Amino acid sequence: MASYFKDIAPIRYEGVDSTNPLAFRHYNPEQIVLGKSMKEQLRFAVCYWHSFCSTGSDPFGGSTFERPWFDGGTALQLAEKKAEESFDFFSKLGAPYYCFHDRDVAPEGATPQESRSNFLHMVDILAKHQERTGLKLLWGTANLFSHRRFMAGAASNPNPEVFAMSAAQVRDAMDATLKLGGENYVLWGGREGYETLLNTNMAHEFDQMARFLNMVVEYKHKIGFKGAILIEPKPREPSKHQYDFDTATVYGLLARAGLEKEVQVNIEANHATLAGHSFEHEVATALALGIFGSLDMNRGDPQLGWDTDQFPNNVPELTQTLYYILQAGGFKTGGCNFDAKVRRQSLDAADLFHGHIGGMDVCARALLAAEKMIQDGRLAEVVAQRYAGWSQPWAQDVLAGKTSLDALADKVLQDNRDVLPVSARQEYLENLVNRFV
Amino acid sequence: MASYFKDIAPIRYEGVDSTNPLAFRHYNPEQIVLGKSMKEQLRFAVCYWHSFCSTGSDPFGGSTFERPWFDGGTALQLAEKKAEESFDFFSKLGAPYYCFHDRDVAPEGATPQESRSNFLHMVDILAKHQERTGLKLLWGTANLFSHRRFMAGAASNPNPEVFAMSAAQVRDAMDATLKLGGENYVLWGGREGYETLLNTNMAHEFDQMARFLNMVVEYKHKIGFKGAILIEPKPREPSKHQYDFDTATVYGLLARAGLEKEVQVNIEANHATLAGHSFEHEVATALALGIFGSLDMNRGDPQLGWDTDQFPNNVPELTQTLYYILQAGGFKTGGCNFDAKVRRQSLDAADLFHGHIGGMDVCARALLAAEKMIQDGRLAEVVAQRYAGWSQPWAQDVLAGKTSLDALADKVLQDNRDVLPVSARQEYLENLVNRFV
Amino acid sequence: MASYFKDIAPIRYEGVDSTNPLAFRHYNPEQIVLGKSMKEQLRFAVCYWHSFCSTGSDPFGGSTFERPWFDGGTALQLAEKKAEESFDFFSKLGAPYYCFHDRDVAPEGATPQESRSNFLHMVDILAKHQERTGLKLLWGTANLFSHRRFMAGAASNPNPEVFAMSAAQVRDAMDATLKLGGENYVLWGGREGYETLLNTNMAHEFDQMARFLNMVVEYKHKIGFKGAILIEPKPREPSKHQYDFDTATVYGLLARAGLEKEVQVNIEANHATLAGHSFEHEVATALALGIFGSLDMNRGDPQLGWDTDQFPNNVPELTQTLYYILQAGGFKTGGCNFDAKVRRQSLDAADLFHGHIGGMDVCARALLAAEKMIQDGRLAEVVAQRYAGWSQPWAQDVLAGKTSLDALADKVLQDNRDVLPVSARQEYLENLVNRFV
Amino acid sequence: MASYFKDIAPIRYEGVDSTNPLAFRHYNPEQIVLGKSMKEQLRFAVCYWHSFCSTGSDPFGGSTFERPWFDGGTALQLAEKKAEESFDFFSKLGAPYYCFHDRDVAPEGATPQESRSNFLHMVDILAKHQERTGLKLLWGTANLFSHRRFMAGAASNPNPEVFAMSAAQVRDAMDATLKLGGENYVLWGGREGYETLLNTNMAHEFDQMARFLNMVVEYKHKIGFKGAILIEPKPREPSKHQYDFDTATVYGLLARAGLEKEVQVNIEANHATLAGHSFEHEVATALALGIFGSLDMNRGDPQLGWDTDQFPNNVPELTQTLYYILQAGGFKTGGCNFDAKVRRQSLDAADLFHGHIGGMDVCARALLAAEKMIQDGRLAEVVAQRYAGWSQPWAQDVLAGKTSLDALADKVLQDNRDVLPVSARQEYLENLVNRFV
Repeated sequence: MASYFKDIAPIRYEGVDSTNPLAFRHYNPEQIVLGKSMKEQLRFAVCYWHSFCSTGSDPFGGSTFERPWFDGGTALQLAEKKAEESFDFFSKLGAPYYCFHDRDVAPEGATPQESRSNFLHMVDILAKHQERTGLKLLWGTANLFSHRRFMAGAASNPNPEVFAMSAAQVRDAMDATLKLGGENYVLWGGREGYETLLNTNMAHEFDQMARFLNMVVEYKHKIGFKGAILIEPKPREPSKHQYDFDTATVYGLLARAGLEKEVQVNIEANHATLAGHSFEHEVATALALGIFGSLDMNRGDPQLGWDTDQFPNNVPELTQTLYYILQAGGFKTGGCNFDAKVRRQSLDAADLFHGHIGGMDVCARALLAAEKMIQDGRLAEVVAQRYAGWSQPWAQDVLAGKTSLDALADKVLQDNRDVLPVSARQEYLENLVNRFV
Repeated sequence: MASYFKDIAPIRYEGVDSTNPLAFRHYNPEQIVLGKSMKEQLRFAVCYWHSFCSTGSDPFGGSTFERPWFDGGTALQLAEKKAEESFDFFSKLGAPYYCFHDRDVAPEGATPQESRSNFLHMVDILAKHQERTGLKLLWGTANLFSHRRFMAGAASNPNPEVFAMSAAQVRDAMDATLKLGGENYVLWGGREGYETLLNTNMAHEFDQMARFLNMVVEYKHKIGFKGAILIEPKPREPSKHQYDFDTATVYGLLARAGLEKEVQVNIEANHATLAGHSFEHEVATALALGIFGSLDMNRGDPQLGWDTDQFPNNVPELTQTLYYILQAGGFKTGGCNFDAKVRRQSLDAADLFHGHIGGMDVCARALLAAEKMIQDGRLAEVVAQRYAGWSQPWAQDVLAGKTSLDALADKVLQDNRDVLPVSARQEYLENLVNRFV
Repeated sequence: MASYFKDIAPIRYEGVDSTNPLAFRHYNPEQIVLGKSMKEQLRFAVCYWHSFCSTGSDPFGGSTFERPWFDGGTALQLAEKKAEESFDFFSKLGAPYYCFHDRDVAPEGATPQESRSNFLHMVDILAKHQERTGLKLLWGTANLFSHRRFMAGAASNPNPEVFAMSAAQVRDAMDATLKLGGENYVLWGGREGYETLLNTNMAHEFDQMARFLNMVVEYKHKIGFKGAILIEPKPREPSKHQYDFDTATVYGLLARAGLEKEVQVNIEANHATLAGHSFEHEVATALALGIFGSLDMNRGDPQLGWDTDQFPNNVPELTQTLYYILQAGGFKTGGCNFDAKVRRQSLDAADLFHGHIGGMDVCARALLAAEKMIQDGRLAEVVAQRYAGWSQPWAQDVLAGKTSLDALADKVLQDNRDVLPVSARQEYLENLVNRFV
Repeated sequence: MASYFKDIAPIRYEGVDSTNPLAFRHYNPEQIVLGKSMKEQLRFAVCYWHSFCSTGSDPFGGSTFERPWFDGGTALQLAEKKAEESFDFFSKLGAPYYCFHDRDVAPEGATPQESRSNFLHMVDILAKHQERTGLKLLWGTANLFSHRRFMAGAASNPNPEVFAMSAAQVRDAMDATLKLGGENYVLWGGREGYETLLNTNMAHEFDQMARFLNMVVEYKHKIGFKGAILIEPKPREPSKHQYDFDTATVYGLLARAGLEKEVQVNIEANHATLAGHSFEHEVATALALGIFGSLDMNRGDPQLGWDTDQFPNNVPELTQTLYYILQAGGFKTGGCNFDAKVRRQSLDAADLFHGHIGGMDVCARALLAAEKMIQDGRLAEVVAQRYAGWSQPWAQDVLAGKTSLDALADKVLQDNRDVLPVSARQEYLENLVNRFV
C-alpha cells in the first residue's frame, strides 16, 4: 500500500486567505473561466519522470533523495511500488492527468522482448490505477535517449539497427497510449542531433527522421489513435545541437516531411528560453503556423545555460502565454504538463507537493488574469487597429496576390509621399497588461 | 580624384615570409586550389556600408572616423566622392567584387521620386567605375531598416503603405543589380520581426512576408535576372525577434511560401553565433536543405551579445566551413562578402586595409587547409563508414518507405538482441582536422 | 515656456480601479510603508539622458523621435529649452529627484574652457528650475565615454592627457553636484576596460584607475561633499570588457585601492543581468560587502545581449530586491533612478509618461509586497533557523578564529558520524514569496 | 597488472610528418623553448577524475563507458585496479604530472574514520606508483561537492557540522599532497554559493569561507607545505551562483579575508568562458592582480551553457594565454592540468589517448607560437608605445599620488586644448599575432 505521502492530506482549494501551505489559494478546479472549469481549461498533468524517477543527482554529485521505491526489491517490484505511490500522489494533488515515458514506468530488460514484457505488465497496472482513481493519461512517450544504445541518436542514428530498436519502442508506447486512453503521443528528440558535425551526415539524418515521423503518423492512423502526435522542440542538451531546435525549425522539418498538417508541437518553457525565445513567443509562433499542441509547464533559470526544469513561479510571465492560448480557443487535446522537478536539496515528501501546488496556483492566477485581458478587450483592439490599414481594398489585393511588385512600386512613385510613422505604444500596452496580473 | 588612400600602394601577394603588413602572405589570387584559382574559389567582396558609411559611432559614443566624404559638399557630391574613394580602395585591395545597399551609395531624398533619382544617378556612376576598374558586383540589396518609416518593419509592417514603399525600393535595387551585372540579390529582414509581441499579429505578418517574397521572385523572372535571390538569416538585432532567425527557420518560411526551390540563404558568421549556432552549422544546414547561397564573412565576439562584425581571424574556425562548401562543389553565384568593419578606434586609412588583408589571408589559409582535408579524404571516409549500415537492403527499404513501423518493430522482437555501440571518435577527428590547419 | 507636454495634466494617484492610463494606480506618494512615505522609501529619480537626449536611433537606424529641443536654435538655446521641458516633465510626473551627466544638460564646446563655461551656465539654470519646482538632484555624473577623445577610456586611457581631461570634467561635475544639493556622485566606467587585450596593459590601467578614484575621494573631502561616491558596475558595452564588471569585482577594485569604506555601488538591473546575475543578487552582494548605495531601476530583455534599458514591469522580480533593501533599513543617500528609455517606436510625448508611470506603479507594488514579507517574518525566520547551528559555542569559536583546521578535523574523527542533510525548502519559500506579490 | 591500455604503445614524438595518430607531432618534451624544455614549460598533468572516474553518464543518460575498474571487486580493490591502470596511462602518455581529488582515488567509507582509512591506504599505493614511475603530483584537492552532505555547500554550509567535515577532509588531502610531493593544493568551491537567495545569508557565508580559507593557510604553514594554495574560479554549476565567480571576484574574496598574498588562482578555460570572459582575460587579470597560479587546460563549447570540459583544440585561442604566462616568466608551481574528458560516445581506450595527445600537441604549437611572439617583440613594443605618455614627469607624478584632481583640472583649463586620438590598431595587431599561429 502507498505510504510515502501518508502524512499529507488531499490538497484542497482553501482560498487566497488560507495560510495552509498544503492547500491551493488560487486553483479552484470547478471555478468557471471563460465558460469552462479551471480544471478543463488548464488540464494539469504530473510527470512521472521528475517526481518519481529523479534521484537528485546532478553532474557534480550523486543522489540526494531517498525514496522507498529506489531500493529493496526486484526491478519490477520497485516499479509497482513506484506506480502505487505515484497514483497516491496524483490523487492527493488533484491533477486530472499524468504523463510518462515507457522507461519511467517499467524497467529496461536484458532483451527487447523482456523490456516489452516489463512494459506491458506495468501498463496493465497503470490501467488499473487509472480505473481505480479516475485519473487520465495526457500523453505517453518513449525514452529513446537514456540507454547507451541511443548515445548517437534514435531515428537519426548512423546505425539503422538503432532506428529499428526505436521503432519497436515507439510502437509499444503508442499502443500503450491508445490502450490507456492517452490524448496525445509525444516525441522528444533528445539525441536527434549531433555532438560534433565532424562525424555527421546531416542530410542523411534529416531523411531518416522524416521517414521515422511518417512511419509514426502512418501507424497512428493504422491503429486508430485519435489523439495528436506532438514533437517537443529543444535546441540542445543532451546533444550539442538538436534538429528540433524550436517551433519554427520543427515547422520546417514537418513541411519537408509533408507532415505540417499531421504533427503539432509540445512547447516547454525552459526549452523556449534555451533557444533564445520567450515562452509566449514559442506559443504564438505555433499558433500562427497552425501547429500548437500542448505545454510542458516549467521555468528555466535566466542565469543558467541548461535545463533546470523548475516549477513556474512568475504570474506575469505565464499570463501572456495563456492569453494567446485562450484567445485561440484554449487547449484541444493538449494541457499543462508539469515537466518540473523539485531542487535536489528539497528532500522531503512534502516538497513534491509544494512544487506542484505553487505551480498550479501560479497557472490559475495567470489564467484568471488572461481571462480578464480577454474580457477587457483593449489589448486585442489595439492590435487590430494597428493592422487596420490592410483592410483597404488595394492592400487586400496585395495580400491576395493580385498586385505585382512593379505595380505597387509604380503606385508609390505616383503618390510620391512618405509614410507617417505612429507610436507603437509598447509602454502603454505593458502597463495595460500589468492591470491584470 | 581619389586621394584618401594615396599613401597605400596596391596590395600584392608577397608570400609567407614577407614582413610587409600591407601585403598578402597567403592570398595568392592565381594559385590553383582544387582546380580553380583562389580568386575564383573565394570570390571576395568588399561591402560598401561598413567601410565607407560607418562613422565609428556606437550606442554610447559619436563618430570617431573622419573621412573626406563625410562633409563638405551636397549629399550627391559626397556620394560621388565616396564612390570614387571606394573603387580606389577595392582596386588597391584586389578583391574582385563589392556589395551595396541602395542607401549606401545614394542619399535618401525628400520624396520617393527624389530618392529614386539619386539612386539612378549613382548607379550610372557605379557602372562607370566598374567598367573602368573591371570590378564586379556580387550582390545588391535595399536598405529597408534605417529610415524611421521602417521602424516597425518593411514587408511585415502593420501599415501597408510601408509595404508599398518597400516594394518600390526593392524594384529599383533589383533593376540596378541586373544593370550592374550583380550575381545575386539579397534580402535582409532587419526589422521584419517584432519589438514586443503585445502589439503584433504574427500570422498576419507571416502572410505579408510570404506575399512580398513571392512578388520579388515573380519580378526576378519578369526582368530575366539570372542570379540568386538570397535571404540573410539573423535572430535578433535590431528587432527583439527577427522572423528569419536562422537557416532552419528560413527554410520553414520558404516552404510555407512555396519558395524553397527559388530562394537561398546568405549566411553570416556573426548571425550564426547570435542564433546559438556555429558558422559551420549554418552552412551545413543550408547545404543539407538545398538552400545554400553565399557567405557574409566576419566574426562575432564570443563574449558579446550583439553583432560586432569583426574581420575573421581564426583559421581553424573557418576551415570546416570552407571544407563543407568545397565538398559540395564550391560557390555557385555566391562568394565571401566581408560584412566586417574596423573597430571604432582604428582611425587610419591603413586600418581599412589591415582589416581586409587579415581577413583575406585567413580565408586563404582556411581554403588551403580545406583543400588538404578533401585531398586527404580520411574525414569523409570516417563519416561514410559511420553510415555504412544504411546501405543494407533492409535499411534502404526503410528509407524508401517500404517498411512500416509495425514491420520494423516485429523484426526487432524476432531478432531479440541489443545493438552494440561503437566509438564516435570525436577526439580522433578533431586531431585529424588539426593536421591541416 | 515649456510646451511639449502641454496636453498632459499632472499625474495623480487615483487608486487601483482607475482606468485613466495617465494616473498612478499604486504609487501613492504619501502612503506610509514601514514608517516612511512611499515617496521617501522609493526616492524616485528621472534621468535626463534617456528621456530628453535620446533620439531613438539604434545601430541599424537613425532618429525616430522629433523633440522641439533637437533643432532650431544654438546649442545653448536648445539646452535651455530642453531643461525647461525636462523640469515640466519632472513636475508633472511627480518624481522628487532627477539625475544627469554634464553633457546631457550642456553642450560640449570647442575647447575645455568653452565646455566648462557652457556647463556652468546650465548649472545656474538647473538651480533656478530646482528652486522654482522643489525638485532635487539625486546624483550628478560626468560623461567620459561619448566624445571620441574617450574612445580608449578616461581614467584608464593609455594617454595621460585624457586622464587629465577626465579629471577636469569630474571636478566640474562634482562641484555642480555639490552646488545643486545632489545626494550622491556617480562614476560609470563605460570605456574603462578594453576592446582588445592585444594592445592593453591591464596592470597599468588598474593603477591609473586606483589613482583616479583616490583623487575623486580626496576631492570630495576637500570640498566637503557629504553625499556618497558611487561606482556603477557593468560587465561590457560599450567596451568588450569593463573593469567594473559587477559588484564583487568593484569590491576587489576598491579593496586594492584602499577605498572599500569610501565608495559604494549604484546597481543597475540591466547591468546585473548582462553580467550573468539577477538584480537581487547584485543588491544582496553589495549589502553583504557593505557597499550598497543606490539603484538604476530598469530591466533588460532576457533574450537580448545588450543594454535595452526598459522600464521595469515585473512585480515579482523587483520585490525580492526591495525586500533586501528594506530589510537593511532602506535607502540612505540612494534612490531609484529610472535609467530607462521608451522604445524607439514610442514616438509620442505621452509615451514618456506611460513608461515612467508603469515603472513607478510596479515599484510601488513591489514595495508593498516587500513590506508584507517583512511584517510576515516567515521568510526571515526560515533563513535564521537554517543557520541556527552556528550559534553553538564550538561553532562560534570556529568563526572567531579560535579553532584550527587540525582541531576541527580531530573533533570530526572523534565523533565519527555523518551529518544528516535537511530539506532546503526552495519550493516552499518560492510559494511563500508568491503570497505577497 | 594493468591491462586496459595493453594495445597502446608509449606515445613518442615523431614530428609533424608522422601519420601515426598515437604519436606527438608537435609536443617534443626535450625541445628547448625560451631556455627550458617544453616539458618544463608546459608541466602537463593528467587528471584522475575525468579519465578514470567518469562513466560517460550525462543528465539525460546513463553510463556509456565500460572500464574494468568499474565492477567486479570490493571498492578498495577497484580503487587499486584504477590506480594501476591510471599510472599505466600516465606513463604511456608521458605527461610528467597528475592531479586528484581524495574521492577519485579512494572510496568514501561508512564513517569519517573509514573514509580516512581508505584514503590513507590509497595514498600509500599512489606513493609507490610515483616512485616506480617517476611521475609527480601537480596538485591534490578534496572533493567537497559530490556527497549529499555537501548539497548546500562545504565551508559555506548553513550547518557548521558540514564545515567541520570539510575541515577533516581537507586536512587529510593537504597531508597527502605534502606526502606525495605535490606542488600545489587546490580548493574548488563547487557548492560554495547558493541555489536560491531566498534561503541564503550571504554575509554569513562570506564570513564562513573567509575563516575556512584562513584555517587552510594556517595549516599549510604549520605543516611546512611549500607549494601554493590555489582557488579555482567558476561562476555557476553545480550551484546557481558560486562565490568564486571569476578571478576578479576571487581577488575581492581574498582581500576581504586578508589573503591576497597567500592564495592564488587555478584558472580553467571553460570556467572563464562560462563567466563571460576569454581564457586569456582571466590569465591576464590574475597576472595583473598578482595572483596567477596554474591552469586547468580544456575548452568549453561556445554554443553550450555548461561545463563541457573538452580537450583544447584551437591553437590561436591558446597562444595568447601562453604568451602572457611566458611574458611573466612562465609557470612557478603551476602547470597545465587537462581538466578534460573524452566525449561520452568516445568509448575506446584509445580515445583517452587521442584526447590527451591532441591537447598536448595543441599546447605545444601554441607554446612555440608564443615563443616566436616574444622573440619578435613587436607586440610588446606596440603596447609599450601606447602607454609611453605616462613616462612624462607630470604623468608619473599623477600616478605617484602627488597631483590632486584640482591641480590636474587646472592644468587642463590652462592648456585649453583637446587631445588628438590615435588609432589603437586592433586589426594590425590581430594580423601580427596571426603570423605566429
